[in-house]
Amino acid sequence: MLSALDLARRLESGTLTVDALYDEIDGAIAAREPEVRAFVQHDVANARAAAGRARGPLAGLPLGVKDNIDTGDRITTYGSPIHAETRPAVDAAVVALARRAGAAVLGKTVTTEFAFFQPGPTRNPRNLDHTPGGSSSGSAAGVSAGFFPLALGTQTGGSVVRPAAFCGIAGFKPTFGRLPIAGVKYFSWSLDTLGVFAAGVADVAFGAGILAGRDWRIDGEVATPPRIGLVEPQPFAEADPDMEAAQERVRQSAERAGASVTRIALPPIFREAFAAHQTIQDYEATRALAAETDLAPDRISPVLRETLEAGAAISGEAYDAAQETAASARRAFADLMTTVDVLMTPSAPGAAPLGLASTGSSVFNRVWTLMGAPALNVPGLVNDAGLPLGMQAVGAIGADRKTLLAGRWLEERLRDM
Amino acid sequence: MLSALDLARRLESGTLTVDALYDEIDGAIAAREPEVRAFVQHDVANARAAAGRARGPLAGLPLGVKDNIDTGDRITTYGSPIHAETRPAVDAAVVALARRAGAAVLGKTVTTEFAFFQPGPTRNPRNLDHTPGGSSSGSAAGVSAGFFPLALGTQTGGSVVRPAAFCGIAGFKPTFGRLPIAGVKYFSWSLDTLGVFAAGVADVAFGAGILAGRDWRIDGEVATPPRIGLVEPQPFAEADPDMEAAQERVRQSAERAGASVTRIALPPIFREAFAAHQTIQDYEATRALAAETDLAPDRISPVLRETLEAGAAISGEAYDAAQETAASARRAFADLMTTVDVLMTPSAPGAAPLGLASTGSSVFNRVWTLMGAPALNVPGLVNDAGLPLGMQAVGAIGADRKTLLAGRWLEERLRDM
Repeated sequence: MLSALDLARRLESGTLTVDALYDEIDGAIAAREPEVRAFVQHDVANARAAAGRARGPLAGLPLGVKDNIDTGDRITTYGSPIHAETRPAVDAAVVALARRAGAAVLGKTVTTEFAFFQPGPTRNPRNLDHTPGGSSSGSAAGVSAGFFPLALGTQTGGSVVRPAAFCGIAGFKPTFGRLPIAGVKYFSWSLDTLGVFAAGVADVAFGAGILAGRDWRIDGEVATPPRIGLVEPQPFAEADPDMEAAQERVRQSAERAGASVTRIALPPIFREAFAAHQTIQDYEATRALAAETDLAPDRISPVLRETLEAGAAISGEAYDAAQETAASARRAFADLMTTVDVLMTPSAPGAAPLGLASTGSSVFNRVWTLMGAPALNVPGLVNDAGLPLGMQAVGAIGADRKTLLAGRWLEERLRDM
Repeated sequence: MLSALDLARRLESGTLTVDALYDEIDGAIAAREPEVRAFVQHDVANARAAAGRARGPLAGLPLGVKDNIDTGDRITTYGSPIHAETRPAVDAAVVALARRAGAAVLGKTVTTEFAFFQPGPTRNPRNLDHTPGGSSSGSAAGVSAGFFPLALGTQTGGSVVRPAAFCGIAGFKPTFGRLPIAGVKYFSWSLDTLGVFAAGVADVAFGAGILAGRDWRIDGEVATPPRIGLVEPQPFAEADPDMEAAQERVRQSAERAGASVTRIALPPIFREAFAAHQTIQDYEATRALAAETDLAPDRISPVLRETLEAGAAISGEAYDAAQETAASARRAFADLMTTVDVLMTPSAPGAAPLGLASTGSSVFNRVWTLMGAPALNVPGLVNDAGLPLGMQAVGAIGADRKTLLAGRWLEERLRDM
């Protein structure tokens, strides 16, 4: 994998040239892209040229952009055959900000259909027989395969944290609204949130902080043991035995290293919020994709069509009630987070499932997306089969930096284990 | 003016034919569009054909669509020369829902540049020497001039309520998130809200309710006297003397007709919220328009460029603090609204200002947009010069129907005065 921080330092100091970097990337893509299939399209020569001219804190760094995010210089398919020829007029805001900071768009990465569940062709670089997760499949797989050190994704349920976990990298979804959503194809306007992928926590803090225009950079800083809230029992689903065991080992390691770990049983409102997430998502998706549904219903996958039909059956009143539930849960969440720095939960029920037919489950992520909370996959653990197991750190609204610092501290524990 | 309810009833009963309606519209446009200039583009023949095939609750009704809202079958300029040739791939969600309900898109209506302050060529149909207000200039003017009975607009500060007030029609901005924002060009993702224009309050309730999929229809219902909170003193700006006098007459008339009218002095947090609105708007606009700023800075107007420069100087921390202020003010607003059905304030400081150089002031609207509250212009009053004076009704979050009912009751009082 390519460390964004390391590459930025080496490019700046001149110990790495743009040409040497893009030669390496060319090599990695030639070697692995035929099997990984992270890209919808890519253009190393174009990125190399842009990198040669670039100035700014991300100067020269290759960027993967999930294909539900508009790019003005190339087709953006949103993962749907309906948009096979769609060419946006301008870049999404976050892409423009990335270019302004010096990043070079290397390519558009595979997303599931409209960032929902119908998978693309991407495979998990850690084991090609397994899903990379989704919906930001190509962005996570591409970082994991060494194609680019930074990538953009989006999360409506668990589409940043989960693929990061499955691919063994850091994935960070900041507080809702901190990255500009303009130019991202909406699935659910109350939930869709931009996120960033990178090799490690310090790398993702570096990249996401620059794009958000905030001081999230934490490399060089000594992280102190955080106050961790261990969400237990898991209210939404059971974790696999290997994940349960991993979490227990992380707990012990964190306590040994000085962290306070408190078991937190989520109040009942969070169960209601879990259901509200689906109501809000399905209701909004049905409206957000109304044009596509009327234009080309036969080019919508059965899994999405089923969700859109479910969404169409949700009344405005049921949706409004779900939004009220979400608001109540956010107040309970704010109270909860006065006692700990981060919550810790598995990022997913277990390691990446076998096969490409499903991108896995977002049950461990949905409520935190609904809360609008910063959520981070902390990489480092593997199961007996050598597949990554991700731990999720969730922070209070606006506590993005604190979440990243706690995640970095946890990451060090995981690497010691 | 064309009443949407009346036209829908007559089309359904067969006392009005599609051809007769579109002949009338053709005539109105031929007579007044050269001076009013509500449209960026229009196509009566196309709408007539669509209306002839249409089914649904809005079957055959001509619709004006503000040109910051995507249409898949025609260019969408966002009011900017940068997008003179931009052709979106698909309709915005709200346009797709309108077509699904049977509405026929008659044309794209003039918006100020990116729905901010730089005016387009539209004139006020009530007096051509005056601004129609903005940013939804063409949608409001077109309803007022009888070009269409329903139109879509957006509000970030006061861009629905103010032009409705200046043009003497009903304009309704529902609770934030109730109409699907997907496919609307963002100026500020925390603030931009879709709204609807129509001749009267019952008409706008009919149209907006269908698009939102909610039971907002109030025609035929006997409105009972509401509990009105009169926001006084005005915390953000002074109203003109004619507006002050009009509001006092409305208060007396409402009390005579049985309404309880309570004077409400807004708590100090609302002054902070007023400032927070601008911080959030400018910060987000600077990010939302990053691509255009980098692509064609010379094709951005001086007034917008100044705002974008101000936004670029706002730190992430200042923005986050403004969002916290907004959240505090929303809690205070929810408390306030337990005691009244609606707040009443002027929709604007006075009648439409003379000239086209400015679209007038949104000082009376911004805080309510920031609250995400339903806000309605109630038409009916005029000043001595014959220019409309609008009264604004603001409801609690989610109390859209109650706001419309109270507004309809007020409208009857205004028509009696």
